[in-house]
Amino acid sequence: MSESDARTVLWGRQRERIEDRLRDLDPDLARYVLEFAYGEVYERPGLDLKTKELLACVMLMSLGNPDELKTHLRGALRAGASEEELRETLLFAIPYLGFPRVVGAMQALRELLEARKKER
Amino acid sequence: MSESDARTVLWGRQRERIEDRLRDLDPDLARYVLEFAYGEVYERPGLDLKTKELLACVMLMSLGNPDELKTHLRGALRAGASEEELRETLLFAIPYLGFPRVVGAMQALRELLEARKKER
Amino acid sequence: MSESDARTVLWGRQRERIEDRLRDLDPDLARYVLEFAYGEVYERPGLDLKTKELLACVMLMSLGNPDELKTHLRGALRAGASEEELRETLLFAIPYLGFPRVVGAMQALRELLEARKKER
Amino acid sequence: MSESDARTVLWGRQRERIEDRLRDLDPDLARYVLEFAYGEVYERPGLDLKTKELLACVMLMSLGNPDELKTHLRGALRAGASEEELRETLLFAIPYLGFPRVVGAMQALRELLEARKKER
Amino acid sequence: MSESDARTVLWGRQRERIEDRLRDLDPDLARYVLEFAYGEVYERPGLDLKTKELLACVMLMSLGNPDELKTHLRGALRAGASEEELRETLLFAIPYLGFPRVVGAMQALRELLEARKKER
Amino acid sequence: MSESDARTVLWGRQRERIEDRLRDLDPDLARYVLEFAYGEVYERPGLDLKTKELLACVMLMSLGNPDELKTHLRGALRAGASEEELRETLLFAIPYLGFPRVVGAMQALRELLEARKKER
Repeated sequence: MSESDARTVLWGRQRERIEDRLRDLDPDLARYVLEFAYGEVYERPGLDLKTKELLACVMLMSLGNPDELKTHLRGALRAGASEEELRETLLFAIPYLGFPRVVGAMQALRELLEARKKER
Repeated sequence: MSESDARTVLWGRQRERIEDRLRDLDPDLARYVLEFAYGEVYERPGLDLKTKELLACVMLMSLGNPDELKTHLRGALRAGASEEELRETLLFAIPYLGFPRVVGAMQALRELLEARKKER
Repeated sequence: MSESDARTVLWGRQRERIEDRLRDLDPDLARYVLEFAYGEVYERPGLDLKTKELLACVMLMSLGNPDELKTHLRGALRAGASEEELRETLLFAIPYLGFPRVVGAMQALRELLEARKKER
Repeated sequence: MSESDARTVLWGRQRERIEDRLRDLDPDLARYVLEFAYGEVYERPGLDLKTKELLACVMLMSLGNPDELKTHLRGALRAGASEEELRETLLFAIPYLGFPRVVGAMQALRELLEARKKER
Repeated sequence: MSESDARTVLWGRQRERIEDRLRDLDPDLARYVLEFAYGEVYERPGLDLKTKELLACVMLMSLGNPDELKTHLRGALRAGASEEELRETLLFAIPYLGFPRVVGAMQALRELLEARKKER
Repeated sequence: MSESDARTVLWGRQRERIEDRLRDLDPDLARYVLEFAYGEVYERPGLDLKTKELLACVMLMSLGNPDELKTHLRGALRAGASEEELRETLLFAIPYLGFPRVVGAMQALRELLEARKKER
């Protein structure tokens, strides 16, 4: 896999840390996440990485999973989405998922944006 | 609202029929769908209509709603998505939603593609 | 249990048929539905039967179960809800559950109302 | 809108704080919550505000959203529901949603009741 | 992979037909189902195939997917589960998922048992 | 009920504390959990207790309820499941529920295993 694969773009310098944490949780789970989800499904052509991460965000909103959502909001930013595109993605979910999921997701976005400010 | 609003693109010549069917179901529900969901949320700038419809598709997969999914798979095609992009969107959902949702969605896509062939 | 228990009100002359169908499906499932869900939980004081059936309707909307929903929309009518109250209950769910669940529920309500017309 | 609208009843003296917090999260999300969800859907006639909040509570239980649930358990109390009616609403959900959702909701109710005691 | 792999046990003489149908739906989806879900995850040691199919059944109940559920109820029978074990598995789900999911699943089980009778 | 009933096995010396906590939350909820869920459904013959707890674990994963999941992962261990069987149960859920649910469940398992180490 080339250096420009999805994980390198989405996780950047955190890549090693994230992969170690997954392996530590369960080596086979890590293998399936890294080889199947990222190595295979994410590497498919046909949709750009930014679109993929926006799709991931609304699915995680639907599942009600704010921690994992935050990871993919960050991934979307790293894949080239603007803050405005993230806000529009969350707002677009209102007619499909209702307000409680979207209010929770906006809080996750705010926490992410604040954490990124501090990192600088 | 201009003639190029989301409903005109997504529903085309079916627009009047769809709106009548909604009004017949419940006039206030129709008003909220048409004024709030389409007139307001869909008309927001920041994401193109094709991306919006792909987001709608994965949320409807997550909700397990194959009929409504078919409507938005059709909408995505009308908004400029290729069949390949629809397939990639459904396949991308596997790591997030699991296989049963995606197999059901592929059956909905197949039924839609067959219906469109007959319409010609 | 008195003649005015929940099942008598909600199921009316269909009561025997419904209970037989459940027993035929599985005798222990029937026993739990009739003794625990209806005999115990539905008989609790503190909320009137109409409110209980409206609560049941929005939970079944949330679960995405249109057949069971139709049974409880009918139950709500039998417990004294007006058609308007049913419509208001479904519309009230929009901000919490989004439009796809509510459009599906309105179709179930319409089918129920048409079936009741024919029964007369 | 009159002073007796839903938000005034449900949020009381917290109204300004809640609306500011929403606007701070995202101004358009705030506008949709306040104008569409509250200004339009909650203001509909046909169901009293207490019934509406009980419906909101069971939908939020179904979505598995304990924080938002707490807000609407509080809203139900402010709209005139007794503690007993809240307990009955949560218990009534057992046959529809199962025990895990209801145990989680009872913990949310307990935390709310303890917080209200301290506020006095 | 040996002749005694999961697909051979679960699908029997239907195996070729099922795999063709999947490939016809989408060749990459078929590959992921056959290589990842069945070839990799189902072939893991540590749990016997009957237990795996019972786990699949309750997850499909939770997702509200009666067609896929029927396939795995059949799979559980082929993996050695008795009709009684299937009934117990569905009844055990009541406290976790509530009655509507279990009533729907019992109807799926009944349809499966009737179809199997006719096949003989 | 004999000393070897499900609660005694699953909860051990914590049994009194768990039952008191439930009663304190709501006496009727406690009664339904203890008499219906445990006293009736868990005591049914046909499936061993270990299998029942593994079924409970995947349903709680599907509902997205990590706290309750931890309780039943512990219950499964007390009912005789090995750590390996728990890992296999969680990994088996990947094709049905997707990765986010399983990653969250593995974190719950890790927290449980660490808490058990400290208890010794």
